[in-house]
Amino acid sequence: MICEIIAAGSEMLTPHRQDTNSLWLTGRLNDLGVSVAFKTITGDKLDHLTQAAQIALARTDIVIFSGGLGPTEDDLTREAVAAALGLGLERSAELIADLYKRFAARRMKMPENNIRQADVIAGAVVLENKTGSASGQWLDTVYNGHRKIIILLPGPPKELMLVFNEQCVPRLAAVLPPRHIAKRVLRMALIPESQVDERTAPIYKKFRDVETTILAHPGEIQLHFECAKPTLEEAQARVDLLAGKIEDEMGDAIFSSQNAPLEEVVLLLLGMKQQTLATAESCTGGMIAERLTSISGSSRSFLGGAVVYSNELKTEFAGVPEELIAQHGAVSKQVAAALADGIRKRTGASLGVSVTGIAGPSGGTEEKPVGLVYIGLSDGRQTEVKKLNLTGGRERIRFWASQHALEMLRLKLLV
Amino acid sequence: MICEIIAAGSEMLTPHRQDTNSLWLTGRLNDLGVSVAFKTITGDKLDHLTQAAQIALARTDIVIFSGGLGPTEDDLTREAVAAALGLGLERSAELIADLYKRFAARRMKMPENNIRQADVIAGAVVLENKTGSASGQWLDTVYNGHRKIIILLPGPPKELMLVFNEQCVPRLAAVLPPRHIAKRVLRMALIPESQVDERTAPIYKKFRDVETTILAHPGEIQLHFECAKPTLEEAQARVDLLAGKIEDEMGDAIFSSQNAPLEEVVLLLLGMKQQTLATAESCTGGMIAERLTSISGSSRSFLGGAVVYSNELKTEFAGVPEELIAQHGAVSKQVAAALADGIRKRTGASLGVSVTGIAGPSGGTEEKPVGLVYIGLSDGRQTEVKKLNLTGGRERIRFWASQHALEMLRLKLLV
Repeated sequence: MICEIIAAGSEMLTPHRQDTNSLWLTGRLNDLGVSVAFKTITGDKLDHLTQAAQIALARTDIVIFSGGLGPTEDDLTREAVAAALGLGLERSAELIADLYKRFAARRMKMPENNIRQADVIAGAVVLENKTGSASGQWLDTVYNGHRKIIILLPGPPKELMLVFNEQCVPRLAAVLPPRHIAKRVLRMALIPESQVDERTAPIYKKFRDVETTILAHPGEIQLHFECAKPTLEEAQARVDLLAGKIEDEMGDAIFSSQNAPLEEVVLLLLGMKQQTLATAESCTGGMIAERLTSISGSSRSFLGGAVVYSNELKTEFAGVPEELIAQHGAVSKQVAAALADGIRKRTGASLGVSVTGIAGPSGGTEEKPVGLVYIGLSDGRQTEVKKLNLTGGRERIRFWASQHALEMLRLKLLV
Repeated sequence: MICEIIAAGSEMLTPHRQDTNSLWLTGRLNDLGVSVAFKTITGDKLDHLTQAAQIALARTDIVIFSGGLGPTEDDLTREAVAAALGLGLERSAELIADLYKRFAARRMKMPENNIRQADVIAGAVVLENKTGSASGQWLDTVYNGHRKIIILLPGPPKELMLVFNEQCVPRLAAVLPPRHIAKRVLRMALIPESQVDERTAPIYKKFRDVETTILAHPGEIQLHFECAKPTLEEAQARVDLLAGKIEDEMGDAIFSSQNAPLEEVVLLLLGMKQQTLATAESCTGGMIAERLTSISGSSRSFLGGAVVYSNELKTEFAGVPEELIAQHGAVSKQVAAALADGIRKRTGASLGVSVTGIAGPSGGTEEKPVGLVYIGLSDGRQTEVKKLNLTGGRERIRFWASQHALEMLRLKLLV
């Protein structure tokens, strides 16, 4: 069964708004064994939308519309789909009563326009929308001799998700062959996509029943595995077997086999090893602290730290000797080491991590170019420093520096 | 002239990848006076792509394809468009030579597949791609008696942008009526969209020749104005007149009339008033420092600060008395004030800003629920504290807290 998703709304034909509903819908449809073959975005024009509906009905089995079910003149999905199918619209007495009730509950008079939201395509089932006034519709019908399932969903993402999950998934599952899906995600930091593919392709290609997708994110590669079988146990066993083989190959390069972000893994390891952490950040300006504290419960292992943007604060908060900065410069191996050890001592944490570098675009010199970053890591016995030469713009350099710092911490905590 | 954008690539029919090229292309096309009427996304299937091309040629004047110009078997845009038009493909000797040169420069042997990248639709002009091996194509032709412009662009965003800007914009401008566009963006923080619309609609609705769009971002509302006229001066005059009237109405609520982000405006005002700033952040965990330091040159006014996640660090880095924390709790008006004034004193900055609160999802009590946040701001003479009751998840609460802190700073610096 293949599907087309049609998003109706002129705002999605501007440079400002993206259709995001279709990404979420695609995930849910794939879980049911349905592939999305086309996505179309049209504006609020009856003829455009009607034609798009006809094209979709001719080329796919399931057609899902999002948006265009509101009360305004621009909301034309009901009319367009009815016209495409050559069916009429029937005003539902029940929906009219519901609409009046909604407005009465808010002590408002219902504008006359809103009554259009009670129009139902002949033969369609109404899909109740508990959180909005736009009901969805479900139609299982025959078009040019072929069975077609047509679904109209409200555009606001929360309403669309609720209506689809509660009322469309069970209906689709009833007409589709039974199917159970197992998924796993393995995540790796700072490793080139080509290297991951080179090492893992010989393994995952042998699992023809598991779909493997490699996704590259900034400073991170993810391996997504997905398998569909008649029972969940069979599917899970296949995915776990493949994930295990990949884990054997990639070893410690994998920071999470449970789809956790790097900052969460670092916090988990800190907790397991009963260690605490403090940060002293110059060019990342608080990004490492911000990433760690984005995880709920981070206060158990992360004490805090300092954003030592000025040289004075490097001395004030992390006890870096003024002479050391004068001698080697703020962006140097020596200052990175002093920052990491200084912040550890100052905060009483067992581990101190530091970043000093040149994020650009200005401030670079021939000797110390934009992208030069030092990461320091101190545990009280020894202080390691890693030198990086990062490329790209300011935001990329800052993010990669924070990623390197977290990965360096993780590898230390693994030992 | 209306346009359809067709993105080719099966990865955009998964839950993981979005077509983002079309947003950028829409902006550039709108500048030229071209509206986008449809967007279609198809997978790597020759028949699907050929049909999509025919449908687009029938319903629009300009059809732009992105992606599918690579060397692999899945790259079928050239073949599909040629088939849709009933034209042949001609292998360009010049492109073959270029491809061999590219590989030779990297001391690599060219795989046989790559020769397909030299195939050009009969009658098309080759659009040189300086940064990749996939050339674009431009075809100005007649289809079913109507003039059509067909553009094939490489999929990687940087390549697509360069080829379109350098080689398609001038060609399109030559065939379209002359048109000059002026734009302005006004930005406001922490103000409800409905309030902005209520106050500004009576003004902008009188400017029928200026297109006004209200965009809501987290903690921010933007008003976008756009006007097209035969000369740039006329267009600019209309946009500036409208922007001036809106500025009169909204006053200081507008933080930028030059499309600058809030953190940049705060840094600008700090510089103008010759003030320096330090931060002491608890629940935002470094987000304010991170936002400020994302702006190049921030070191001139922003000294740094502390991430005082633990109570001990509130005392250690900002001199908050232990008794004060014991008496009122870390999340309190008193501690926010002491943090702001303490970090100011400690760093020697002229202004200190602090955040302490409960970002959740855990840690809330009946007396101090999740979302309770105090922002402190000290200038040495006085310390203001603002109490917030924010809603939503951890990330939303943290971001809105940082937005409130920056806006509080801005308003203080305006006085």
